[in-house]
Amino acid sequence: MSEYRELRKSHSILELCKTPRLAAEVTLQPLEALGVDAAIIFADLLLPFEPMGLHLEFVAGDGPKIHNPVSSPEDVARLRAPQQGDLGYVGEAISLVKKSVGPDFPVIGFVGAPFTLASYMIEGGSSRHYAKTKSLMYSDPAAWQALMERIVQTVTPFAASQAAGGASAIQVFDSWVGALSPADYETYVLPYTRMLVRQIQTTTLPVIYFGTGASSFMPLLDQTGCDVLGVDWRIPIDQAWESVQHRPAVQGNLDPLTLLAPLPVLKQRVEDILDRIGGRPGHIFNLGHGIIPQTPVDNVKAVVQMIRDYEPKPAQQ
Amino acid sequence: MSEYRELRKSHSILELCKTPRLAAEVTLQPLEALGVDAAIIFADLLLPFEPMGLHLEFVAGDGPKIHNPVSSPEDVARLRAPQQGDLGYVGEAISLVKKSVGPDFPVIGFVGAPFTLASYMIEGGSSRHYAKTKSLMYSDPAAWQALMERIVQTVTPFAASQAAGGASAIQVFDSWVGALSPADYETYVLPYTRMLVRQIQTTTLPVIYFGTGASSFMPLLDQTGCDVLGVDWRIPIDQAWESVQHRPAVQGNLDPLTLLAPLPVLKQRVEDILDRIGGRPGHIFNLGHGIIPQTPVDNVKAVVQMIRDYEPKPAQQ
Repeated sequence: MSEYRELRKSHSILELCKTPRLAAEVTLQPLEALGVDAAIIFADLLLPFEPMGLHLEFVAGDGPKIHNPVSSPEDVARLRAPQQGDLGYVGEAISLVKKSVGPDFPVIGFVGAPFTLASYMIEGGSSRHYAKTKSLMYSDPAAWQALMERIVQTVTPFAASQAAGGASAIQVFDSWVGALSPADYETYVLPYTRMLVRQIQTTTLPVIYFGTGASSFMPLLDQTGCDVLGVDWRIPIDQAWESVQHRPAVQGNLDPLTLLAPLPVLKQRVEDILDRIGGRPGHIFNLGHGIIPQTPVDNVKAVVQMIRDYEPKPAQQ
Repeated sequence: MSEYRELRKSHSILELCKTPRLAAEVTLQPLEALGVDAAIIFADLLLPFEPMGLHLEFVAGDGPKIHNPVSSPEDVARLRAPQQGDLGYVGEAISLVKKSVGPDFPVIGFVGAPFTLASYMIEGGSSRHYAKTKSLMYSDPAAWQALMERIVQTVTPFAASQAAGGASAIQVFDSWVGALSPADYETYVLPYTRMLVRQIQTTTLPVIYFGTGASSFMPLLDQTGCDVLGVDWRIPIDQAWESVQHRPAVQGNLDPLTLLAPLPVLKQRVEDILDRIGGRPGHIFNLGHGIIPQTPVDNVKAVVQMIRDYEPKPAQQ
């Protein structure tokens, strides 16, 4: 949104995240414009890196860079344990948003999942092949375990502080988990993701788990024990839900790039998702991944309206 | 391999591809070293771009760049039709390899699939979000159709010339098809991919179709009518095969990054694939995507030996 770009002219991403007043302002910007039913706090997956002792920088056009990546068991051992008050600014931003939207409007907090955070730490940024991450995972299981446990230990109080700030749910983003085979996910990642999900659930908040590029092993994602499973756009949503039948709720599924399509094409895709859901309770309409900067805001508004206007098709005889 | 890197010091990728003697040399390099049962010709998916009138360059570290990308219906109309003799150097390289390996040793030719080639043409290189490609696809279906048909028309004789050179099979690589939703694949991509597969099959050669990142919609990939379906590493191979039950053959599935693992981990993953296949005929052991440069050659050799040494587990009672 142009309002956000205006703010970014004078503030870095990290400044916006760390200043509750500004993070709240950015969170509120789309709410009125779009007419959505919930807000997600403006923050970043990598915020826990600085208190852990990692030097994080967002390089324009290039994404996040970690200047002292983790590459040995010694580096893992050096990662600082979380301290009381670390990252409290996100919880504060959530409480400011809640003051503005009122107690009945849900605000979603979020954190990074262990694999996604570990891969950023080890690669020093985003990656194409995750060669360093997988090498460490395969060749030093003890260092890998220590790293994943330290991440869970750091992210848990971060989620709890967002709960204390008034979040209604915590979303756990596993953006890069699609780099893994099902066997590697099950062996090296699932135990820690399940641990994190359970620990966040002790706050009594529901947990939304969202892994991208992993629609071919949804039943394993489901074993995290999350309350809501996010679905990317690479699988029809009814098929995804059938593969995790006991799961009470799913969200996601619209390819964010469809927002660049003419409205009739966009409407077809939106209604296809709603047709496939068929009125089943527990569906949260959402995109199947992040929105890209060149997305026309009017198309996002139009999608919200399409969902509100949707009339279920009469059942076929 | 070090022999390949040595050659690259004095020759660009395009020079190697266009010089049958050198392309054959590079194709032969791994055969003796690894002890594999087939060769795949050294070539590049994007070779058809130059005869189509696109200015292709491989930029070190940055991958392919197309200096005059396709961005309008006029650009599509300007793409040159294939001429007799275009790209004949790949068929020549195949016949040189055949001379060296003998008539009974299979040499696999390959071409790019329509979506993957179209996305390179439109984005001007590789892409993160495929925003330009999807925008054209959604907003100008006539231009999209013309582009996809022109690609099929160009790639078909290219495959035929590889068949004439002595290829035993043609692999169709759809490297970027995992960017699509199943609905978009079915509407915008499948008809042209099926057309290409059928036209290559008129050479009487079997067609291997390999789409990466699309394991969540294998049954649609199967509808291309290919003879062999490639499987990436994001799905257990038995589950992939069960989802396309009538398909006579599958190949792929080992995460190429597993080649960086210690041998016991690598062996576990190799044997897991073979256990899941359970001796079913029609399985071609292969990686689930391309090999990365830092892969130790010795680990690749070890995998070939593990496959030869494999003894099926006795059936569980």
